[in-house]
Amino acid sequence: MTDTEPDPGAVPWLSAEEQHSWRAFVRMHLKLSARLAADLQAQSGLSPADFEVLVALTDVPEGRVRFQDLAKGIDWEQSRLSHQIRRMAKRDLVAREECEEDGRGAYVAISGHGRAVIGAAAPKHVATVRRLVLDGLTPEEFAELGRLSAKLADRIDRAEP
Amino acid sequence: MTDTEPDPGAVPWLSAEEQHSWRAFVRMHLKLSARLAADLQAQSGLSPADFEVLVALTDVPEGRVRFQDLAKGIDWEQSRLSHQIRRMAKRDLVAREECEEDGRGAYVAISGHGRAVIGAAAPKHVATVRRLVLDGLTPEEFAELGRLSAKLADRIDRAEP
Repeated sequence: MTDTEPDPGAVPWLSAEEQHSWRAFVRMHLKLSARLAADLQAQSGLSPADFEVLVALTDVPEGRVRFQDLAKGIDWEQSRLSHQIRRMAKRDLVAREECEEDGRGAYVAISGHGRAVIGAAAPKHVATVRRLVLDGLTPEEFAELGRLSAKLADRIDRAEP
Repeated sequence: MTDTEPDPGAVPWLSAEEQHSWRAFVRMHLKLSARLAADLQAQSGLSPADFEVLVALTDVPEGRVRFQDLAKGIDWEQSRLSHQIRRMAKRDLVAREECEEDGRGAYVAISGHGRAVIGAAAPKHVATVRRLVLDGLTPEEFAELGRLSAKLADRIDRAEP
């Protein structure tokens, strides 16, 4: 993108140094997400979305949570989560439990099979994360990456859509 | 993932502090990629994949590059790029130019329309990136994020698949 300049008065283009950093950041994200997804699929037969939902369900008491709270917790559109849960229920990873008496909607619960699958997948995923990320940085660098990430995630949460 | 422990002797689980950093990193990544994709689509009608290909094509002389070199440059499987180029060609963003005389395969070239689209999209994308990322960090923090990203991307490149 060297031959396209914004209007004068518009938001300033990235400087060469900023562009260098931004491209490194994008490159890292693309490579890391592709690799983590490939390893997760090959080792455990899970997509990143499957993994995210199963982890969220092992984080709550009894492995069950209201559908709406799950959507909010993992920051997904309800329609996307609804499709995902339907697919995961077919594979017996989760179950959708209707709960009409209190009028506050359905629960999603992890199944026994889901617990076994995530229990086997998680250590392999941790090994990949260690190998690709933590082992490549000093503890101080990894902590700094976490701090900068939290700062950005909070900013994005506060930004107008 | 509090109730699942790896086998003794396996790769050690993340410490509480490491897990905190890793989750912040994953949260940032998910939020940022979702937001960038939504803004790009809303402002310019482009997917992140469209954007990545168009940027890669504006980076090369004459806006054309061999298909295989493009796949390598953006680190995509050839089959994925092939589908993507077919879809983008239908929208007149790029053209596939056969070049059989030298036996080294086809070129992909950005079209005039593709140049106009990326020329209009890029400044808006830069504004989003500034607002969500650069404006939320000090220049030193952003440079550090770039440095850590480059370090990780290089490590992932070197890691066995």
